[in-house]
Amino acid sequence: MTKEKFNLKYNEYLDLINHKLELIFDSDSFRFRKSDGLERMLECMKYSVFSSGKRIRPVLCLAFCDACGGDILSACDVACAIEMIHTYSLIHDDLPCMDNDDFRRGRPSSHKQFGEADALLAGDSLLTFAFEVVCVSQFSDDIKCKCIFEIAKSAGPSGMIAGQVMDLQNESRLCDIDRIMQTDNLKTGELICVSSKAGCIIAGADTDKINSADIFGQKIGLAFQVVDDILDVTSTYEELGKPIGSDINNNKQTYVSLLGLKEADGFAKQLTREAVQALDIFGDRADFLKELAFTLCARRK
Amino acid sequence: MTKEKFNLKYNEYLDLINHKLELIFDSDSFRFRKSDGLERMLECMKYSVFSSGKRIRPVLCLAFCDACGGDILSACDVACAIEMIHTYSLIHDDLPCMDNDDFRRGRPSSHKQFGEADALLAGDSLLTFAFEVVCVSQFSDDIKCKCIFEIAKSAGPSGMIAGQVMDLQNESRLCDIDRIMQTDNLKTGELICVSSKAGCIIAGADTDKINSADIFGQKIGLAFQVVDDILDVTSTYEELGKPIGSDINNNKQTYVSLLGLKEADGFAKQLTREAVQALDIFGDRADFLKELAFTLCARRK
Repeated sequence: MTKEKFNLKYNEYLDLINHKLELIFDSDSFRFRKSDGLERMLECMKYSVFSSGKRIRPVLCLAFCDACGGDILSACDVACAIEMIHTYSLIHDDLPCMDNDDFRRGRPSSHKQFGEADALLAGDSLLTFAFEVVCVSQFSDDIKCKCIFEIAKSAGPSGMIAGQVMDLQNESRLCDIDRIMQTDNLKTGELICVSSKAGCIIAGADTDKINSADIFGQKIGLAFQVVDDILDVTSTYEELGKPIGSDINNNKQTYVSLLGLKEADGFAKQLTREAVQALDIFGDRADFLKELAFTLCARRK
Repeated sequence: MTKEKFNLKYNEYLDLINHKLELIFDSDSFRFRKSDGLERMLECMKYSVFSSGKRIRPVLCLAFCDACGGDILSACDVACAIEMIHTYSLIHDDLPCMDNDDFRRGRPSSHKQFGEADALLAGDSLLTFAFEVVCVSQFSDDIKCKCIFEIAKSAGPSGMIAGQVMDLQNESRLCDIDRIMQTDNLKTGELICVSSKAGCIIAGADTDKINSADIFGQKIGLAFQVVDDILDVTSTYEELGKPIGSDINNNKQTYVSLLGLKEADGFAKQLTREAVQALDIFGDRADFLKELAFTLCARRK
């Protein structure tokens, strides 16, 4: 797939996702019970949801649905729900008691903008609301339940949150690369995997395809984190939209500190190749996903 | 219903709920992916879930299921899921950036016991895990989706969380009684209503019964909060398991400060009578629920 065609497709997915998110957070179009509290939460949620994120997870969901020959329009609710869960995790992750990050995507983080209490509650709101959004989607109750189960499992205490706990534990101990990989597989990988799998589930794909999507998600999830670590030492504030060198300043062990810059780069490329291999089962339909894997590996922000 | 029979029934429900919760949080019986992060979260979640709570919400769920002639065993998953969501809301509510309460049910609150980061994540875990628990329950996908939708709506940004936001806003403004009632209806009432409604939904009850359960929930939810305010000035630390007079110390406007003690007491009793009236549609089958409403109104802790 040419870079041009890839960009066109990415933007097509992005438009669908952003349009759906606009609908979801429109206080008039949804069956919201009006209150001052809701107005405030809508403001806080929208600040973080509409903040120039790359939308990788919802794009994966639509692209896998597409690769399985499914209806991408009907996949938009689940895609957006996963993006909402991703956004909640970032808001809570930035809080003073967690990573204490004042900036996110070049803007003040949620608690800097709205105060800690409302940031905490905006995260809670996004997580809870995400499950409501899946429930009002158009497909069968069977598929809704499968999606909710997979999403809750991936985002929950044996998935993403376990990774966040381990990440906090890692700050005060020496970790080997296996420990770092387990942490990242849970903290970042789980939600990327479920985005990929959910797209297949919505399209009614068979278990082989769902498993392949899972492997693809694991590989690019890990590659994504390795590239993140590389960018933390090689990028700039302007490119990245957040301070550079934060891992070193926090004494955090990263793929770069454990493997060296060159080896880390090779590792990211190897993972990306393995991810692309897992797409064989989808044939030509997965061209976009292949290009996406290479693009994420070569990204500068 | 005699007090003795009521207590027997309450304990029967309690045993079912506690047994199910033990199963849910047993790291071996559930399909958990093992990790250090999971172990830590299980420890934190269990500390708050098994802490002598009254289990009013899950009891309501089972009792309404019972009153509609449903199978209470199959209602246990949803009942426990709602209790998990209630528990998450207490953990987050106690955090320093929220109500900053060091004690809960006579023990250190979660963040005092485990630190703020793990308390925050334990709350997130309980909320997410609750939806997984509903998904693995035994009834049809149709009923699961209805329950998940109602629970997410009640606990989300136009329900319970809106109430929490308003509660925080109320600290810095003068409120009339309508504003306080709207706050409490959202903050406390929503989850009590959905507990009642979910029991009916699981039993396959008709809309009239579901609506009556909703009204019952609204009335006793509000009565519960009025009694809470009364106990804050008339109870003791030993009875209540938390400091007395916290509302006055926080300059919080309560039903007692707005109505006076006697009028507040009358209001709680009137709401309880209205709640009991809403049970007429269930006939004799609602005797337990009637007694529960009176018991909650007359409670000392």
